Amino acid sequence: MPSSTAVNKDLQAERDKCTFNNEEFTLWWVGGETKLKEKRFREDFFLNDPELEEKVPLHFLSHKEVYEESVRKATVAFKKVRTLHDGVDNYSALLGGLLGTGILKQGNPLTVHYVMFLPALLGHGTPEQQAEWFGRAWNCEVIGTYAQTELGHGTFLRGLETTATYDERTQEFVLHSPTLTAYKWWPGGLAHTANYCVVMAQLYSKGKCHGIQPFIVQLRDEETHMPLKGITIGEIGNKLGMNGVNNGFLGFDQVRIPRKNMLMKNAKLLEDGTFVKPPSQALTYGTMMFVRVVICRDMAAYLSKAVTIAVRYSAVRRQSHINPDQPEVQVIDHLTQQYKLFPAIAKAIIFKLTSDNLWEMYNAVTSELDKGDLERLPELHAIACCLKAITTADAATGVEVCRMACGGHGYMTCANFYGTYGMVTAACTYEGENTVLLLQTARYLLKAWHQAQRGQELVPTVQYLARFLASSNRRIEWDDSVAGIVRALQTVAAGKLRLAAENIAKRQKAGATMEEATNQTSIELARTADSHCRAFLVQSGYEMIEKSCESLSPEVARVLRTIYQLYAYDEALKAVGDLLRFTTISESDINRLQAKLEVSLAELRPNAVGIVDSFDIPDGVLGSPLGAYDGNVYERLYEEAKKSPLNQEPVNQSFHMYLKPFMKSSL
Amino acid sequence: MPSSTAVNKDLQAERDKCTFNNEEFTLWWVGGETKLKEKRFREDFFLNDPELEEKVPLHFLSHKEVYEESVRKATVAFKKVRTLHDGVDNYSALLGGLLGTGILKQGNPLTVHYVMFLPALLGHGTPEQQAEWFGRAWNCEVIGTYAQTELGHGTFLRGLETTATYDERTQEFVLHSPTLTAYKWWPGGLAHTANYCVVMAQLYSKGKCHGIQPFIVQLRDEETHMPLKGITIGEIGNKLGMNGVNNGFLGFDQVRIPRKNMLMKNAKLLEDGTFVKPPSQALTYGTMMFVRVVICRDMAAYLSKAVTIAVRYSAVRRQSHINPDQPEVQVIDHLTQQYKLFPAIAKAIIFKLTSDNLWEMYNAVTSELDKGDLERLPELHAIACCLKAITTADAATGVEVCRMACGGHGYMTCANFYGTYGMVTAACTYEGENTVLLLQTARYLLKAWHQAQRGQELVPTVQYLARFLASSNRRIEWDDSVAGIVRALQTVAAGKLRLAAENIAKRQKAGATMEEATNQTSIELARTADSHCRAFLVQSGYEMIEKSCESLSPEVARVLRTIYQLYAYDEALKAVGDLLRFTTISESDINRLQAKLEVSLAELRPNAVGIVDSFDIPDGVLGSPLGAYDGNVYERLYEEAKKSPLNQEPVNQSFHMYLKPFMKSSL
Repeated sequence: MPSSTAVNKDLQAERDKCTFNNEEFTLWWVGGETKLKEKRFREDFFLNDPELEEKVPLHFLSHKEVYEESVRKATVAFKKVRTLHDGVDNYSALLGGLLGTGILKQGNPLTVHYVMFLPALLGHGTPEQQAEWFGRAWNCEVIGTYAQTELGHGTFLRGLETTATYDERTQEFVLHSPTLTAYKWWPGGLAHTANYCVVMAQLYSKGKCHGIQPFIVQLRDEETHMPLKGITIGEIGNKLGMNGVNNGFLGFDQVRIPRKNMLMKNAKLLEDGTFVKPPSQALTYGTMMFVRVVICRDMAAYLSKAVTIAVRYSAVRRQSHINPDQPEVQVIDHLTQQYKLFPAIAKAIIFKLTSDNLWEMYNAVTSELDKGDLERLPELHAIACCLKAITTADAATGVEVCRMACGGHGYMTCANFYGTYGMVTAACTYEGENTVLLLQTARYLLKAWHQAQRGQELVPTVQYLARFLASSNRRIEWDDSVAGIVRALQTVAAGKLRLAAENIAKRQKAGATMEEATNQTSIELARTADSHCRAFLVQSGYEMIEKSCESLSPEVARVLRTIYQLYAYDEALKAVGDLLRFTTISESDINRLQAKLEVSLAELRPNAVGIVDSFDIPDGVLGSPLGAYDGNVYERLYEEAKKSPLNQEPVNQSFHMYLKPFMKSSL
Repeated sequence: MPSSTAVNKDLQAERDKCTFNNEEFTLWWVGGETKLKEKRFREDFFLNDPELEEKVPLHFLSHKEVYEESVRKATVAFKKVRTLHDGVDNYSALLGGLLGTGILKQGNPLTVHYVMFLPALLGHGTPEQQAEWFGRAWNCEVIGTYAQTELGHGTFLRGLETTATYDERTQEFVLHSPTLTAYKWWPGGLAHTANYCVVMAQLYSKGKCHGIQPFIVQLRDEETHMPLKGITIGEIGNKLGMNGVNNGFLGFDQVRIPRKNMLMKNAKLLEDGTFVKPPSQALTYGTMMFVRVVICRDMAAYLSKAVTIAVRYSAVRRQSHINPDQPEVQVIDHLTQQYKLFPAIAKAIIFKLTSDNLWEMYNAVTSELDKGDLERLPELHAIACCLKAITTADAATGVEVCRMACGGHGYMTCANFYGTYGMVTAACTYEGENTVLLLQTARYLLKAWHQAQRGQELVPTVQYLARFLASSNRRIEWDDSVAGIVRALQTVAAGKLRLAAENIAKRQKAGATMEEATNQTSIELARTADSHCRAFLVQSGYEMIEKSCESLSPEVARVLRTIYQLYAYDEALKAVGDLLRFTTISESDINRLQAKLEVSLAELRPNAVGIVDSFDIPDGVLGSPLGAYDGNVYERLYEEAKKSPLNQEPVNQSFHMYLKPFMKSSL
């Protein structure tokens, strides 16, 4: 069958009817002319390099081959970055963003070196230590990783078991894994890539534990790469995704390192074994905020990728009649399909804007407060926790909904939903497990609740609690404008918070400790944080888009306003049980809201392909026969199938080895 | 580190406090002494055969190796079945059930031969055709598959493009794929395993199309296995799961087969090309019902497997304090963890009982109605459609919740959640895509609604519509007993159905065709079918368990009653928005319901391990270091890691090939 290079005619018809200028949308989405130019240069520079092409798709390779191919590509890609002037931006594009996973589909074994080992040297090393290590590490003369999580402990840091015991006689630390569960487990690049490592261990000196401190440990010989004495090292095995990342384990059997290998920018250990506390608790909010902002933006990026694939496919695929005398319709014309895809478009946009919003808030707060008075940081930390939890959870669900909306073809690995899901669902667990994070936010909200009850002034993201307490009506007047929906969802969060606080108090009265009472109320607390976060997201989407619209054409503005409306109606309808409890919403209001949601789906329908086109994700990054710009879905699926190693010979050896003897054995 | 064979002490403590007799529960769950004995014999017979052992875990192999190993194991396993007396039961255990996926983790390339090719011969072949084909196929002298779905068409059968054109001169059919989208796509075993195929194609004779008919086509030479002339054949590539199944594609270029190869039990084509319609529309309800009952039961089995792993792991894993002065707690003591896992236990049990229930209903109806009056079959078909949709969707979500409840370790392929998810999520798409099925149920409900409005008698599963119409109150009195919850959920379904019917009528009045109006109302219709199904599941769980309890000890009965209570409370709380709309439930009722849910979680807590133990799933089927009976989670994770081919040598070749040159290149 000849493969056509022309654009599929249904997809072309969608583009012809788009009501806005794609390039304008893209410029807004990417952040201006310069950024767009840089982005396209970068994509061209990396995606069109034959050395970075995929000879055989990774999903046909063995686990070992996937790692080896990932090392090959990572080194090629970073060598290329070195040739560019503006190194930093290009590094980050290759490390976290969509471009990176376009090239390194199963992740990058050098990522942790760049995003954790180097920052750990800067964040924890003294100037002398940085002078010794940073230059060599930056030039990749040594490759490092960062080992914190252990086989038996992740979330609960105080439980880590690895010890670093100071020996005053030799002025060395002895690193040791007292149990199997003390083995470091998970660090990226640890298994066979890195030769150095920042190890977090319990510091013991003069028989006393001084808590978790960072140590630089050499793992492998710099020339031969052989593991050093006392080091047990290897990889943890195959995972749902990221099999190029080379996650490893690491055990210590009395490994000695010099005293200078403890990173001492903050806490110090003197030669005589005296422990010196850091002058103040290290301000780690910045890093944590940054990581969560990045996760939130990555979720937007992955979701935009999944929904681009699903929307284009749904415009090309035809299935079933609506009216029996007419041809089969594009599946995107089925209302249920629109309801699967268009909210995912809205989420991708709103998650990205909210990550921008959060970062702006953080920078505004820290620059205002030069005096060291960082009182708003706990507030931002609380909102960042729940945003990480909700955006990762919703993006994971969204990617799966997009996949299933593509029917059987979505189940193919080459469709690239599954790889995307592997990346997204991992983020539900790492950097703070989602339930744990929701409960952190809830604990902050409980404090704010008690402040509000005492009439204390509240920081902006929780000011709605004061309004709630001031209102004589426990149920707020329903108003189906987007601003009204924000107020309603805030009222829901406040109402749930009140109930949770009451239940905790009740349980304490009945004899439970504060902690037991909190655990007994944790289902409600997690839900409260969820509501708080969703109210914030709807508000943030609304405000960020309205701000954008000031400098956009009426056509693009119109589309974006429909986006936040759809998002708000969808969130409100999903929370209708809560709204019935805490607002005056009536049966007819609900039906009206459902109708408004359906109107916004209908409004987006002619522009759906136009919007995903405007996300400007090149085919090389989408990596999916279902989602390519030309819409030649079936030809491309067939091309992908032909790449299978099983299709390189007409008869597989298993016929002669197993099948034929079996078929003849009954004769 | 020495690997202990003793049972983990936390897990042992759980077993010690179980309040009921495990063996009694297991006997009930499996269906009696004989079945349990057979099951355990079968597990021992297959799982302890060294020829069926996994040398290297499949997830370390390449795509091609996975297929080859699957063919090897499938032939070994079926040879073993032949040595047993009671062939049929043992076949089915190896084809669909948990035992099968314990041995063939990525599915079985011979399954479609047994579950579709053989039944197609029986269902569509004349006695002469069966005499010619069935014996050879049963003995596996020929291996067949069943090809219906095409690259461009799945759900909408009338759209299939493959043609079988009768040539009167030679009395042959000419099979042809007029386009690329006409290629058959997906059949299991088609790619490199089968040499014959039942092909569904549009029959043309005398220039007229007579719709889809089945044809037997030889694909490969019986001796050499080479594809025959005019046949383009291969595999479709790597998938999210089931990579041992060998899903294939198939194109025809004017392939001629004799007239006798059309399967003519139903429709016929005479020598002169005259088409003879079947005497009556084939009664395919039986097969469809059976398949959906099996899917529903499989979902229960997969969910029971996932939750067994997660519950045992949660009893072994310790994380964080509840009270700061006490040791870290088992994660199963965190209420949020219980709320993730225990509803999954309840679903596994209730889905299995409901599949039994449905099959009993079907058999009762068909045996009663020997006279050919099968008026209740559409009703059962409607309930089977939505049950397939809801049980697959909920099981998929449940498996992922169990996986994420195991944190990072759940992300490992060896944990076996991901393999289970691959099996379960596939069922959301095959045998009727879930949204399509919900809309089929909804169409049935609309008919029933109109019957109810006309005062006609209603069949049992929709009799609640009459009660709803007869009631003067639109909101039913809330009653939080399980029977009350069933009535409330039925009222919800009826209320939503009324709204949907009204909206369709309104849209028709506004000028839409019936079909357009239905599409415009399809979000609501799908939700209506969802509510109908959930009411049925709560009722079915309640009734089936109450029936069981008549012959169970008070201890087991007590546990099972807590199970249906938890299930009912959970479903009710998830539908609280609906309940507020269609019942008199109040704010204090909701809080009371939440408290009841938490009480049922607390009641199940001491028996959680006891219940999953009683599911009696052997380690060989669980296939997970996190879920093994002995609870030696960490030792087993380490053993699994050591199996990685990357861990067989201290330095991977990629260091010398790529990494070292890269590290030295900056010097």
